[in-house]
Amino acid sequence: MTDTVLATASITGLFEQARAASVPLATATRAAKDAALEAIAQGIVAAEERIVLANDLDLANGRENGLSAALQDRLRLDGARLASLAEAVREIAALPDPVGEVVRGGTLPNGVTTAQVRVPFGVVGAIYEARPNVTIDIAALALKSGNASLLRGGSAAENTNRELVAVIQDALESTGLPRFAVQTIDDYGREGARQLMRARGYVDVLVPRGSAQLIQTVVTESTVPVIETGAGVVHILLDASADAAMAADIVHNAKVQRPSVCNAVETLLVHEAAADRVLPQVLQRLRESGVTLHADEATRAVFPDALPATDEDWATEYLSLDLAVKVVSGLDEAIDHIRRYSTHHTESIVTADLANAERFLAEVDSAVVMVNASTRFTDGGEFGFGAEVGISTQKLHARGPMGLPELTSTKWVVRGSGQVRG
Amino acid sequence: MTDTVLATASITGLFEQARAASVPLATATRAAKDAALEAIAQGIVAAEERIVLANDLDLANGRENGLSAALQDRLRLDGARLASLAEAVREIAALPDPVGEVVRGGTLPNGVTTAQVRVPFGVVGAIYEARPNVTIDIAALALKSGNASLLRGGSAAENTNRELVAVIQDALESTGLPRFAVQTIDDYGREGARQLMRARGYVDVLVPRGSAQLIQTVVTESTVPVIETGAGVVHILLDASADAAMAADIVHNAKVQRPSVCNAVETLLVHEAAADRVLPQVLQRLRESGVTLHADEATRAVFPDALPATDEDWATEYLSLDLAVKVVSGLDEAIDHIRRYSTHHTESIVTADLANAERFLAEVDSAVVMVNASTRFTDGGEFGFGAEVGISTQKLHARGPMGLPELTSTKWVVRGSGQVRG
Repeated sequence: MTDTVLATASITGLFEQARAASVPLATATRAAKDAALEAIAQGIVAAEERIVLANDLDLANGRENGLSAALQDRLRLDGARLASLAEAVREIAALPDPVGEVVRGGTLPNGVTTAQVRVPFGVVGAIYEARPNVTIDIAALALKSGNASLLRGGSAAENTNRELVAVIQDALESTGLPRFAVQTIDDYGREGARQLMRARGYVDVLVPRGSAQLIQTVVTESTVPVIETGAGVVHILLDASADAAMAADIVHNAKVQRPSVCNAVETLLVHEAAADRVLPQVLQRLRESGVTLHADEATRAVFPDALPATDEDWATEYLSLDLAVKVVSGLDEAIDHIRRYSTHHTESIVTADLANAERFLAEVDSAVVMVNASTRFTDGGEFGFGAEVGISTQKLHARGPMGLPELTSTKWVVRGSGQVRG
Repeated sequence: MTDTVLATASITGLFEQARAASVPLATATRAAKDAALEAIAQGIVAAEERIVLANDLDLANGRENGLSAALQDRLRLDGARLASLAEAVREIAALPDPVGEVVRGGTLPNGVTTAQVRVPFGVVGAIYEARPNVTIDIAALALKSGNASLLRGGSAAENTNRELVAVIQDALESTGLPRFAVQTIDDYGREGARQLMRARGYVDVLVPRGSAQLIQTVVTESTVPVIETGAGVVHILLDASADAAMAADIVHNAKVQRPSVCNAVETLLVHEAAADRVLPQVLQRLRESGVTLHADEATRAVFPDALPATDEDWATEYLSLDLAVKVVSGLDEAIDHIRRYSTHHTESIVTADLANAERFLAEVDSAVVMVNASTRFTDGGEFGFGAEVGISTQKLHARGPMGLPELTSTKWVVRGSGQVRG
């Protein structure tokens, strides 16, 4: 047998274990799931030494392989970060259980009753990059929503993830839930990820979390249904009537507060009638915070301290202190530009004009559309979901910030007393 | 250029027209959409002669190509069938508009308000077999829910579909909606279907309707998100305590009332403790209605007038007056059998035992689970949805009978007055 055939046979065993574990998990009580989550939280803290040791190994490998300082920082776990991960698990335990919620229902004329009830998906797969916190996060969210999980976390974090999953599995076992409700497939490398994307019948839904390229690969190659998350070429439009101070506050917050995340603004559009009045103040404030501006000619005419933009800038998710800036002739051109370049994540308009606000909200086809607010509000925590699975940029099943209910499906429960169809 | 390159260039033009048409359609008022639907209903009746002529051509081709009598019947349109199609379109017009419904929302502590609002997907693709009624059905449902549609209806009905789509397009234009909100891609043959499955960015969701094989192809080959519908290897379990008369009524109704549809029962499971008492009556009733039984040894011991079943029978969706029958040792074996062979469409238990009823409802992982009712109730019309897009057997987005709301996505509308994230 070739290595691929061997890997396939053996990873299928893991998939079967996940499937089997998902059966008792689907009907586990909230109390049982919360007890397991508490045991995970305690386990993470108790295993600090072992986890940090494994993490040191990953960090050393990372340095050897030229992992950037930013990625090394995302990979690093220490006592304080582990304590905060444990706290996050306890917060998930404290959330209501989405399973069993009756979404709608009724009684047919013949007395048959119907109820659409939330149930777990079954097995949730996740493919992400070297961020060990995502391992804990996805495993805990899946567990709370009654799903088994199969995790592919990236080779750069494989030692850390192995320890974290061992902690989770011990916690599951110690509280009477199936050990294999959470599994890592990191040992199977890229071939494992490929198998996961093709595991129809074993895996009910796949959530990619990470770079645009990773998401694109999963979307294109997966035959398992995918919930697409993340990539955000986010726009703010300053309308002709925009208040200059409000515009400066919102754009600064949206770009500078946390530039590395998907809800940070990447392109600023400005109505030509507002360029002279508003732009200098908005852009000066950004420059003072170290933002590099990539601007069109009209912008550079009023604010020369900006680099010339190329066509590529309009399609770029910088995730850094960079911002593309363009002057537009009005709402039509702005909406066209957004339609062309947006990743349909979040777009915001700053305006005092009611009709323009309503038009922007109605016509911009993104997961979240805003008026006079920072795009940084697109967040499960901010929306009050208590936890965030990711931000869906697709239209099927979930759109925008996803909470626990988005990790469930429904089933129709029909009760009769012998009725047949006439 | 090769034919494929030519076809790709030209079908991309159609996709772009659909995308462009979807923009005004998304914000069209209910009144405008209902007026177009009324014009379609009138158009179908007015164009009877032309449609029936085209249909005769398809039927003649079908006879030449050896199309079965049943498929010819599905393909046939006459005055009465067209009138009933027109009536169905009027019923869709009478349904509430799902677009604009606020699903949930609230106010953040800082005064920012959020509302999750139903919006159209944008462009819905459909791939189905030679059933011209599906052309009208999908186009009308898509239109009512504010979606443009791209239809691939199968070469055996292409002349009929061309006329029907022309009627629809004239009706759209006459009422001020974009003509290209409904288009057929039948002219592009199999290559067109392939392009449709790969049209990410143009098509938001793809609904296959038809045979298990067609659905399998779409699910495997599509990079556009798919809503899987249809295939039903549906089970009824007669528990030890099943009332014999109720069992006979339910099984007879589920098998005989309309054997060609996905919610008809295909496999009957019987608790061994009920076999002697219940089976003869249930199976005799089926035999009298012409049902061919494919049974295991234990069933044939109590009812010799049955063919021996093979392993293949357990996995077969007969869609005919055939039924597989198997005696099981109890609920565990029954649930295991269902887990292995079900297509997760509908399963029903006939029982007088409360604990077994609840266990069956909780543990069987299908879109619809029933107690003491005919599986034929799994139907959008029966559930009171007024119209049915199909019956989803997947867990993402929609599960079970789909109505108009299942043809929509949502978007979050966020309104602030200058708030930024702290």
